[in-house]
Amino acid sequence: MKLSDIYKNLRNDLQLIEQELGESVQSDFDALKHSSVHLLEAGGKRMRPVFVLLSGKFGAYNIERLKHVAVPLELIHMATLVHDDVIDDAATRRGQETVKAKWDNRVAMYTGDYIFARALTIAATIEIPEVHRVLSDAIMQMCIGEVEQIKDFYNHEQSIRTYLHRIKRKTALLMATSCQLGALVGEADRDTVRRLRLYGYYVGMAFQITDDVLDLIGEEEELGKPAGSDLRQGNVTLPVIYALKNGSNEDREAIIRYLKEGEEGRPLGEILQRVRQSEGIAWSQALAERYLNKAFSILEGLPDGEARSSLRLVAEFVGGRSY
Amino acid sequence: MKLSDIYKNLRNDLQLIEQELGESVQSDFDALKHSSVHLLEAGGKRMRPVFVLLSGKFGAYNIERLKHVAVPLELIHMATLVHDDVIDDAATRRGQETVKAKWDNRVAMYTGDYIFARALTIAATIEIPEVHRVLSDAIMQMCIGEVEQIKDFYNHEQSIRTYLHRIKRKTALLMATSCQLGALVGEADRDTVRRLRLYGYYVGMAFQITDDVLDLIGEEEELGKPAGSDLRQGNVTLPVIYALKNGSNEDREAIIRYLKEGEEGRPLGEILQRVRQSEGIAWSQALAERYLNKAFSILEGLPDGEARSSLRLVAEFVGGRSY
Repeated sequence: MKLSDIYKNLRNDLQLIEQELGESVQSDFDALKHSSVHLLEAGGKRMRPVFVLLSGKFGAYNIERLKHVAVPLELIHMATLVHDDVIDDAATRRGQETVKAKWDNRVAMYTGDYIFARALTIAATIEIPEVHRVLSDAIMQMCIGEVEQIKDFYNHEQSIRTYLHRIKRKTALLMATSCQLGALVGEADRDTVRRLRLYGYYVGMAFQITDDVLDLIGEEEELGKPAGSDLRQGNVTLPVIYALKNGSNEDREAIIRYLKEGEEGRPLGEILQRVRQSEGIAWSQALAERYLNKAFSILEGLPDGEARSSLRLVAEFVGGRSY
Repeated sequence: MKLSDIYKNLRNDLQLIEQELGESVQSDFDALKHSSVHLLEAGGKRMRPVFVLLSGKFGAYNIERLKHVAVPLELIHMATLVHDDVIDDAATRRGQETVKAKWDNRVAMYTGDYIFARALTIAATIEIPEVHRVLSDAIMQMCIGEVEQIKDFYNHEQSIRTYLHRIKRKTALLMATSCQLGALVGEADRDTVRRLRLYGYYVGMAFQITDDVLDLIGEEEELGKPAGSDLRQGNVTLPVIYALKNGSNEDREAIIRYLKEGEEGRPLGEILQRVRQSEGIAWSQALAERYLNKAFSILEGLPDGEARSSLRLVAEFVGGRSY
């Protein structure tokens, strides 16, 4: 089975979700509609709905019920993307453009709020109280994660533990929640729900670490943005933290100067080269691998079948083992 | 009965709500806690909780249930205040401060998101589906209202109808929703729910029109900000729209120049004077009065008693008739 087979198998249900995503951001107000639809068209792998549907297969699979968590989870993911873009954009524009940037940003912020509210309206139709508790708790944790990330921008003294805690909130929690809610809505048994949530968490951790590594070693064409974008924004990721702790004194000093003074301190290219040459990349990749292995072994406790194989494949894809 | 008597009568229940508001924004993360608590301490009249409690008195009054809508409604109001401040702040800072402003703004945005999510967690404990439908619909309409307001900033061609539509979404809806949800949670009958919602809507409209008038005619000391702040931000309110439509050609031209060119076109002081001398103020005050009268007459259809007298008094307070 290939990854594309998973999407093929879920095609009808994913199409339904796609349609409901489209309908959910229709609004009588043009600006909102325009920006929401634009975001939808940007597409995406719809990983969260895929997690919901595959996890739902471990219980009583009912797409009419599952879609009421799959659509909100994807909408929440979209809302966070919109909000992530809000202020970055403003900072890059200057002078004449300020007022326009300000408006665009406000529109983006309220578009995010709208998508978020829309997500919660759809989820409100599910009558299982635990679903709402889990969902709103995940959202709160994500918000805390965002603020933590801001606090640690450009901070060269953060620990690996801090990093892991941050990406848990930023990424892994929503994936864990997607699996958990799919299983809960399918009314799977407690142990299955617990295993699927853990699976989502491990895959989410591996996904974010892999993504952070790619940002440092990938090529611009492949990434769709220049390499080192995270560092440029002050986002100190795992390989960099590793290099700061275990690299040579020269590496350490160069990275600190870049974090403190930007390009005026040291060129980003040099920093990238130092991090690439440190053991931080291999160490991070190994950690991602360990999370993936945990995901594989937690899956072992679930009944064998197509859904389990599919989840295994998704994990392999996330770890960059297959495309 | 005076307005302070209403607060005195509701004291125990409002204290409980105040306490739960405090607890709801406690978080293990300092920055979030700090900004949320700061917002709480800024206080406020807690109008939305007051509407919930007074409306709840028309059904089976149960503070343990009512607080699960009163607290979220106040939190949603707070979240919108936080988000309203986000980008304004960024635009006023320059140079060195940009990065800090950017971070502060991001923190503010995610603080708003967090408070918003917190509100929905608390509301999730109410098992009446209509409550969730009404609440999330109100939030979506508010977001649309915010975007509409942005679209119409500095627009001198907007109609009174556009203005009324905007303040409905911006202010009146959440007050209408507060009354409606108080009645719904108290399981009041259909007609009572309908009347209370309408009451909240009329009072909300009167409240916002009065607030917009005060911004134009009030003194800085009384307002806590310079008069004409709305206009300076490009927010064209009812008296200004009226003056644009019915004022002299000179008034009209002066206002348009200010909206197009700011202080470089015409000084704000001159514009304020023109609007104050136009009939726009009196006309707006008369419209607010008409909304209040509608609120009074919709109350007539409800059973007489302390709750009804209190709602009448709140309306009078809103209309500036009593303090």
